[in-house]
Amino acid sequence: MINDAPQVDVERLVGELQALAAISDCPEPPPAVTRVVFTETDLRARDYLRSLYEAAGLTVRVDPIGNTFARWHGSDPKASAVGTGSHCDAIPHAGMYDGTVGVLSGLEAIRALQASGYQPRRSIEVVMFTSEEPTRFGVGCTGSRLMSGAMSPADLAKLTDEADDDYDTVRRRAGFTGELSEVRLPGDYYDAFVELHIEQGPELEAGDLAIGAVTAIAAPAQANFTVTGEGGHAGAVLMPRRRDALVAAAEMIAAIDSIARASRSPDLVATVGKLEVHPGAVNSIPSKVTFSLDLRDIDGANRDAVLKQIEVETEQIATRREVQLEHRTLNADPPATSDPRIVDAVVQSATSLGQAHQKMISRAYHDSLFMARVAPMGMIFIPCRGGVSHRPDEYSSPEALAAGVQTLALTLAELAR
Amino acid sequence: MINDAPQVDVERLVGELQALAAISDCPEPPPAVTRVVFTETDLRARDYLRSLYEAAGLTVRVDPIGNTFARWHGSDPKASAVGTGSHCDAIPHAGMYDGTVGVLSGLEAIRALQASGYQPRRSIEVVMFTSEEPTRFGVGCTGSRLMSGAMSPADLAKLTDEADDDYDTVRRRAGFTGELSEVRLPGDYYDAFVELHIEQGPELEAGDLAIGAVTAIAAPAQANFTVTGEGGHAGAVLMPRRRDALVAAAEMIAAIDSIARASRSPDLVATVGKLEVHPGAVNSIPSKVTFSLDLRDIDGANRDAVLKQIEVETEQIATRREVQLEHRTLNADPPATSDPRIVDAVVQSATSLGQAHQKMISRAYHDSLFMARVAPMGMIFIPCRGGVSHRPDEYSSPEALAAGVQTLALTLAELAR
Repeated sequence: MINDAPQVDVERLVGELQALAAISDCPEPPPAVTRVVFTETDLRARDYLRSLYEAAGLTVRVDPIGNTFARWHGSDPKASAVGTGSHCDAIPHAGMYDGTVGVLSGLEAIRALQASGYQPRRSIEVVMFTSEEPTRFGVGCTGSRLMSGAMSPADLAKLTDEADDDYDTVRRRAGFTGELSEVRLPGDYYDAFVELHIEQGPELEAGDLAIGAVTAIAAPAQANFTVTGEGGHAGAVLMPRRRDALVAAAEMIAAIDSIARASRSPDLVATVGKLEVHPGAVNSIPSKVTFSLDLRDIDGANRDAVLKQIEVETEQIATRREVQLEHRTLNADPPATSDPRIVDAVVQSATSLGQAHQKMISRAYHDSLFMARVAPMGMIFIPCRGGVSHRPDEYSSPEALAAGVQTLALTLAELAR
Repeated sequence: MINDAPQVDVERLVGELQALAAISDCPEPPPAVTRVVFTETDLRARDYLRSLYEAAGLTVRVDPIGNTFARWHGSDPKASAVGTGSHCDAIPHAGMYDGTVGVLSGLEAIRALQASGYQPRRSIEVVMFTSEEPTRFGVGCTGSRLMSGAMSPADLAKLTDEADDDYDTVRRRAGFTGELSEVRLPGDYYDAFVELHIEQGPELEAGDLAIGAVTAIAAPAQANFTVTGEGGHAGAVLMPRRRDALVAAAEMIAAIDSIARASRSPDLVATVGKLEVHPGAVNSIPSKVTFSLDLRDIDGANRDAVLKQIEVETEQIATRREVQLEHRTLNADPPATSDPRIVDAVVQSATSLGQAHQKMISRAYHDSLFMARVAPMGMIFIPCRGGVSHRPDEYSSPEALAAGVQTLALTLAELAR
């Protein structure tokens, strides 16, 4: 344990966040950010991070799918390490704080501890997970899924992107080689893993709180729906003869919204975020529509019941509209519970810093959901303005960032003693 | 008038249709066709047509937006010409008969008349209209709209495609220069214009008829809708706080379908063929959705009343869903009536050939809708299997094609006397 509040250089941290945001494929300038895994832009962001790690004297290791570990060696090389970190990929037209704050705050926490003269017994590692976002391959957290054994190398290798290239080909093309089986971490690799993240919700701001100590992560499920009707010329096929795939899909999307709003769990959320129309011409009746479903709840059983209800009601709509419906569940992960020892360390660190805090649940999922399978896990949330995330106007103030890094630094120091 | 049935080489015609279908950007092979205006593929198709025209001894003229006129000179060079023709562009993943049949049948009819020894007094011209399909610029029939004065050169020039390039820039880049004001045809240019087209509906096939003599073309309207809600992370924003643009748009699309099905006119059809979701990520709440509306009726007043009703009901949905709605009517053209003299010429030609025929209405719109503003207009329909169009399985038999070309040839001969 260290006694004083670690000296955090928040200007440096904000500068690094801005430099990272400038590495983007978004047509709009920062703070709008697009950074999709295994693109040139993703690779440039990785190079930038490596330069920061090396400047801080950390030892960098990259695994066969690009998960990156930057280690500050502890005095006991045989002891399991303490991990922190998050991701740096960003969905199209997103903001500059989601994920990046967890990676750069981990680095800043280490620099602050180094400056304080603290010497860890356990090594402390900052992890940058590959592809937390599901943008390219349809499944999120592929880095941490493979690390934790939540997904097999064979299943990962055959995920495909929109160009129909498989994950294995794309990662190799990006320069990440080696055997996928080597990505999985041994069970004793981490003694503790703690991720700092913006809340992506409104609770901390509303309660004027600086720190959330996450006790559990909600259970996400993802599914794809394909509706097949009959195309034709928009002028020539009269209404009673139509089997319009988009009209049927529209009715399904409205039904999904109604089901989610009527759920017994107030935490259940359902989102159709992606939809594609075939052939997609102004004067052509849609013959095929595909759409995604993202369904989450902190109550895993309720989430599964709602997924079942959605399947039943969309099938009924398909029957009535005389279209075919296929749905495929891509993943339906169980919720994760934080390790009480880590939650306590976060709470005590915030308390000793005089930061207002609360225990809370994460409704968004994170790499920590999967890290919980291979290590005792905890998370630290900091407030973001209006609870906004995945948008260019996502924002956490320098004060919020500083409080987060200080809490993280004390927590890591405690866990690495 | 010629006395014998013109000798049509239907094998040659089918071969030319297939050759044209092979000039395609569709990833699937013919009969699937994609040929969008001013692409390399469109230009290759135009080159192919020119080679056929020149082999038939026709004089080719191309106007400043690429409308192409192939003239068989009549004995009286001062007399207004007789026009026929259609378009060769194809929406994504379409078939090989829509439009192309009208262009190549016009050529085949001329070749048949030439072979018969017939000499026209009026010149006979095959027209290939630029961009009948609205795929690229959101508005269909730009070639015939400009020819007929239905659209001003200034309005045409500023239409934009998805890359945000304007029509004027794109046509120049494709090699079509000259002043847009020169495209408009003088009122005495054509003494008659008659277009042959597949029906794109089921009536002729159902009635076992070879020829439809079109008496009127339904009135189309097109509008764009933009729904703006609030984005955010799919996991973090609870259902009661959501203003999801896609859920609102879905409700609107279902409402449009209901309104169209309940319309007092059985000929009213409403289609949402194109929809785009922003940002379009699996785990992001849609903040913006744009969709197209295509609305047609042979009763122009009913169509306008339905458009009004759609505007009112979608506004109500927007208010209830707390999203913003903008709608913009791109065009709402009046219906067109065929010239009785041309309808009679078609009917008499079919009768003299012993082809079963009927007078009928066109529910799809065509370049002839606009040509009616600048010339006496008529259309000849031939059956297509199952009424299917705008799909790869669009099909008209060689027999149907032969009957159509013969009827067209006799009609042109009668009109060009």
